[in-house]
Amino acid sequence: MKPSIPKGTRDFSPQEMVKRNYIFDTIRKVYQSYGYQPIETPAMENLETLMGKYGDEGDRLIFKILNSGDFMDGIPPNTLDSKSLTKHISEKALRYDLTVPFARYVVQHRNDITFPFKRYQIQPVWRADRPQKGRYREFYQCDADVIGSDSLLNEIELIQIIDEVFTKLEIPVIIKINNRKILQGFAEMIGEPNRMIDIAMAIDKMDKIGWDGIRKELAGMGINDSQAEQLRLLLLSGINLNIESLKNSQYYANHKEFAKGIDEIVFIFNTCSSLFTLHSSLAFDVSLARGLNYYTGTIIEVKVDTSKCASQFTSSICGGGRYDDLTGIFGLPDVSGVGISFGADRIYDVLEELNKFPNDIVASTKVLLINFGEKEAIYCLQVLRDLHVAGISAELYPDAKKINKQFEYADKRNIPYVVLIGQDEINKGVLKLRTMASKEEKEMSSSELIKYLTSI
Amino acid sequence: MKPSIPKGTRDFSPQEMVKRNYIFDTIRKVYQSYGYQPIETPAMENLETLMGKYGDEGDRLIFKILNSGDFMDGIPPNTLDSKSLTKHISEKALRYDLTVPFARYVVQHRNDITFPFKRYQIQPVWRADRPQKGRYREFYQCDADVIGSDSLLNEIELIQIIDEVFTKLEIPVIIKINNRKILQGFAEMIGEPNRMIDIAMAIDKMDKIGWDGIRKELAGMGINDSQAEQLRLLLLSGINLNIESLKNSQYYANHKEFAKGIDEIVFIFNTCSSLFTLHSSLAFDVSLARGLNYYTGTIIEVKVDTSKCASQFTSSICGGGRYDDLTGIFGLPDVSGVGISFGADRIYDVLEELNKFPNDIVASTKVLLINFGEKEAIYCLQVLRDLHVAGISAELYPDAKKINKQFEYADKRNIPYVVLIGQDEINKGVLKLRTMASKEEKEMSSSELIKYLTSI
Repeated sequence: MKPSIPKGTRDFSPQEMVKRNYIFDTIRKVYQSYGYQPIETPAMENLETLMGKYGDEGDRLIFKILNSGDFMDGIPPNTLDSKSLTKHISEKALRYDLTVPFARYVVQHRNDITFPFKRYQIQPVWRADRPQKGRYREFYQCDADVIGSDSLLNEIELIQIIDEVFTKLEIPVIIKINNRKILQGFAEMIGEPNRMIDIAMAIDKMDKIGWDGIRKELAGMGINDSQAEQLRLLLLSGINLNIESLKNSQYYANHKEFAKGIDEIVFIFNTCSSLFTLHSSLAFDVSLARGLNYYTGTIIEVKVDTSKCASQFTSSICGGGRYDDLTGIFGLPDVSGVGISFGADRIYDVLEELNKFPNDIVASTKVLLINFGEKEAIYCLQVLRDLHVAGISAELYPDAKKINKQFEYADKRNIPYVVLIGQDEINKGVLKLRTMASKEEKEMSSSELIKYLTSI
Repeated sequence: MKPSIPKGTRDFSPQEMVKRNYIFDTIRKVYQSYGYQPIETPAMENLETLMGKYGDEGDRLIFKILNSGDFMDGIPPNTLDSKSLTKHISEKALRYDLTVPFARYVVQHRNDITFPFKRYQIQPVWRADRPQKGRYREFYQCDADVIGSDSLLNEIELIQIIDEVFTKLEIPVIIKINNRKILQGFAEMIGEPNRMIDIAMAIDKMDKIGWDGIRKELAGMGINDSQAEQLRLLLLSGINLNIESLKNSQYYANHKEFAKGIDEIVFIFNTCSSLFTLHSSLAFDVSLARGLNYYTGTIIEVKVDTSKCASQFTSSICGGGRYDDLTGIFGLPDVSGVGISFGADRIYDVLEELNKFPNDIVASTKVLLINFGEKEAIYCLQVLRDLHVAGISAELYPDAKKINKQFEYADKRNIPYVVLIGQDEINKGVLKLRTMASKEEKEMSSSELIKYLTSI
């Protein structure tokens, strides 16, 4: 049996863990400094909590868990097609994102929560997607949401957070924003006021299927070619005009929702530009749609600014938006929320591509004590204890192998210092410190060693 | 629909998260200081990786994942009992512990690993156990293992780590050790040399089922009453004798495995006692067995020392042992390993019981800026930015609600300071700092504010 792991999943080695933790820690610290508090929810949710929240495609991609015990007991004999059998033999599933479990959490614990509730959550999610480059079946999401406040100051804060995280990570980005109310306006203008979400879902695929593909998708929904052409022109005019000129347009005067969307965007832009110097570019993009159906206001998408660095990365690395009624599905209506989610795996790939992981994060053990045999090793244990008490990470090689083998171990593990204590050194009450890079050796006492290592 | 989560799983609130992270961080820091490196493995493993590794009971308690898509397609029509159907409709499962995935990891990545490999891993595991007080279906394990070294120095190091972690957490503990080779000796002495594991599994239930229960279990395995009585006397003599007298016994002279087990225990005891002052009590307990079948040498179990504190907690809070051939099942024989695992959930309960969580870990936002309206709020954003740049966690209340409502929010969130900037303050270029505990208010400039908050 050749050991392996399921398709689309990954092991993380110590070297990868250090880099991943650098990303998580950066995001976590920024979240915390803005007052967001951590929560965690279980990997498994009740199947009914998740089903129907991500569209038909999402329902199919949810990993379902087989009931324990004799799950076939009492199943009607003709229930043998996968779909109807699933309901009988599975009542739990792995979470598909962090937003729906968060909405469930808020409703379930509403009496213990202080609103507005600012929470962050960094946990894995699972999707039965076809595995491909950069797309995994298990991956981490790093979400922050504010729930219970409809102030646009929250949007501004989240933009600041995005700017701060990517500034710290040294990735130049473009933060694109749009507003679903503007898209709602477009839907009204082409005579399809109830189809905004379908239209948004179609527009979201622009990069993948182009305008011809979108036209076909729209036709499939019963939106005819002349409506589609009208929509295309609206998007085009939006792309070519700046916000202020949209504000002066006939649309603004005639379409309430559209006007509200424009006003919100203008407020966010004006406030940001009057107050801060964002390191990132903030851009209005009327064709930005986002593929999630619960957004109702501001939508945000972040991409690497390839004009400012050598990245080839075109996928979004962070996204989010405002949803006015996500908790409604769980019985708590009229609570507005807004949130963002960083894609840690994609950020990892960009940092690798740009060679932007700091060198000093690959820290491991600082000192390896060489093992010359049982008696010497036992003597070393005391030195080791002193090093630990002084806060220096140190380890004793557990076996009395050839010294070259032990040096090789230090090399491979990137341990910068080695301490040698043989019978001679024990007799003299000293030790030898070897700097691995220079191969230089120096005799000193163990207290001198600690003084030296804590000073560098 | 009333929102809920699956039986035996939990949500963690911000207050709980802070406490849990205190435990995880303490363990992680100690592991790192001894040179252990982090890895992570996927939540899902191939079903065949897990099945058969934890006994029949374990196989039943593994959560299986339903295959995606039309999983019933091509299933032979008469495969309708749960057991035979499972093989056809599930090929993945949630990990049951961290040790088997670690063994799989080591074999799969053997060419990239520097041996001896010291790794730690802090991740959740899932078991379909009947939920009950203190037993969950999703819980974290915090494991450290060394693989590729059979030196007893590893055992000593792990004992030091246990001592250091519980000293930092301020939980007095007894570290009990035994050796499976001693139990092997007992099995030989009663004429059942091949039944050591069965016997150990039975003895392990002593606390739950008593000696009468064990006798029944043994009878069920075909071990007769006189053999069982012999075993009871052996355990009793072991409990009453100290190690040194066991060394002088006839058993030691006549039973090789037994003698080796005793020698290993003696070496560990002598080395620990000659070198360190462990804060914890280290005790030899010949009746310690551990319920896992892969241990072959030293076994370790840690309990709260109820003689030294007011705890009622009798379950083990950490355990481990040496396994000589865990990677053998995956095709890499003759690699010895030894490891420990901290039970974070039980440690949490003990810390709560003893009221030992430090007060200062419940830190959250330091300053709340009161929102007096749009114009004042926008002004506040700049102050907020300055606070963040100075490394002070601060937030602006997003809505212009009544001031009492905003004070209440600060209170509930344990935010110690509030900053008030109304139109008057804007005109004068000052702000008012309110200390929530004393209700004292003081006027100052924003640079004075930063100086004050960074000084305390």
